[in-house]
Amino acid sequence: MALKLYGAPMSTCTSRVLTCLHEKDLDFELVLVDLFAGEHKQPPFLAKNPFGQIPALEDDDLTVFESRAITSYVAEKFKETGYDLTRHQNIKEAALVKVWTEVESQQFHPAIAPIIFQFFAAPLQGNSPDQTIIDANLEKLGKVLDIYEAKLTSTKYLAGDFYSLADLHHLPYAYYLMKTPAASVVNERPHVKAWWEDISTRPAFKKVAEGMNFGEK
Amino acid sequence: MALKLYGAPMSTCTSRVLTCLHEKDLDFELVLVDLFAGEHKQPPFLAKNPFGQIPALEDDDLTVFESRAITSYVAEKFKETGYDLTRHQNIKEAALVKVWTEVESQQFHPAIAPIIFQFFAAPLQGNSPDQTIIDANLEKLGKVLDIYEAKLTSTKYLAGDFYSLADLHHLPYAYYLMKTPAASVVNERPHVKAWWEDISTRPAFKKVAEGMNFGEK
Ligand SMILES: N[C@@H](CCC(=O)N[C@@H](CS)C(=O)NCC(=O)O)C(=O)O
Ligand SMILES: N[C@@H](CCC(=O)N[C@@H](CS)C(=O)NCC(=O)O)C(=O)O
Repeated sequence: MALKLYGAPMSTCTSRVLTCLHEKDLDFELVLVDLFAGEHKQPPFLAKNPFGQIPALEDDDLTVFESRAITSYVAEKFKETGYDLTRHQNIKEAALVKVWTEVESQQFHPAIAPIIFQFFAAPLQGNSPDQTIIDANLEKLGKVLDIYEAKLTSTKYLAGDFYSLADLHHLPYAYYLMKTPAASVVNERPHVKAWWEDISTRPAFKKVAEGMNFGEK
Repeated sequence: MALKLYGAPMSTCTSRVLTCLHEKDLDFELVLVDLFAGEHKQPPFLAKNPFGQIPALEDDDLTVFESRAITSYVAEKFKETGYDLTRHQNIKEAALVKVWTEVESQQFHPAIAPIIFQFFAAPLQGNSPDQTIIDANLEKLGKVLDIYEAKLTSTKYLAGDFYSLADLHHLPYAYYLMKTPAASVVNERPHVKAWWEDISTRPAFKKVAEGMNFGEK
């Protein structure tokens, strides 16, 4: 049976998983969940993810949610298919993929998420972006990216000289950030900028980015 | 060569890794990093973790940081040793361990971390705990634990009827929470309370908890 992904193409967390599925060359069905109609808070979807958030993946009788758990499951189950996202044949490289995947989750994400919320979600709720929140989190994000800049001076990608799940996980939020004036936090750091240009032009992500038009008319 | 863990026993993130090392019955050396002396922001430690945070693990010439990356590395490298924390022989169970490990990281942690900060770290910085922050995050945490309560009605642990890394990752922050008046958020939910009593009395964690006296005279 084919994989079924429940989500929406413009959603950051869905597009993280979509990018992974494309890198792995997998066939799947995208089942749209209408957030504006509140479908994610209705019993059929809550049975897939009790937290009422997209995405969720169905693989036969198994349901997996949390975008980073889904990508990790897909990368491992289909490790012999498509691009190797986890360096599963080299325990040291695989460990470094884990490290930088956690860095995205614990250091990068908490800083960038409020910025994206202010620029894209607040206006939909009738509020203008709160510049104080944006500035405070841009400062945090800048400190994280200083460390990326130093790292990317010695290796081409975060975990080493190979593209991996650790880089991939950054794509959706960074993509929306690059549409805002806050893009300077990336553009001012030459190695981070080169890394961004590299990872965001991989065919797997370019396909996904076409659907990422959140907050646009 | 033996594993070397750089950290401090009272630190939540260090004790997450310590608990994992004990569950896996591994020999290791704990190298104390003196946070109060700022040792984590000095070059020797920054060479291990450029983010300047404990813990970091050295395994021969490999250095791994971010507590959840360390536990995942240890659980996988030593999968045949000690207690099986990842259900590596069953791809479905392993997937559910990943899901609930991500739930800890993305849902539980962001709610509980500010509460623990207010009760334990703010006083050390000369501030009294900010009740507004505590209340807002207790509400968030309560919603997360409502979902745990429902889940734990049908399975004994988060990922299924087996203790796993997903449960283990909750221990350090929940342990400090249980020393505060906010413990009621656990005690009011009978299945969450029973789960907490079960996981916190495993010998591996009881050993670690003895060193968890942050903020105590
Ligand atoms: N940690 C979750 C977050 C999922 C999430 O926040 N999804 C958003 C869309 S990007 C959503 O469903 N929001 C609706 C809501 O939270 O009510 C993941 O990575 O999958
Ligand atoms: N996400 C990191 C967080 C590590 C962390 O916050 N460590 C604390 C001690 S529990 C620390 O080193 N704090 C000092 C600082 O951040 O300057 C992990 O899980 O390892």
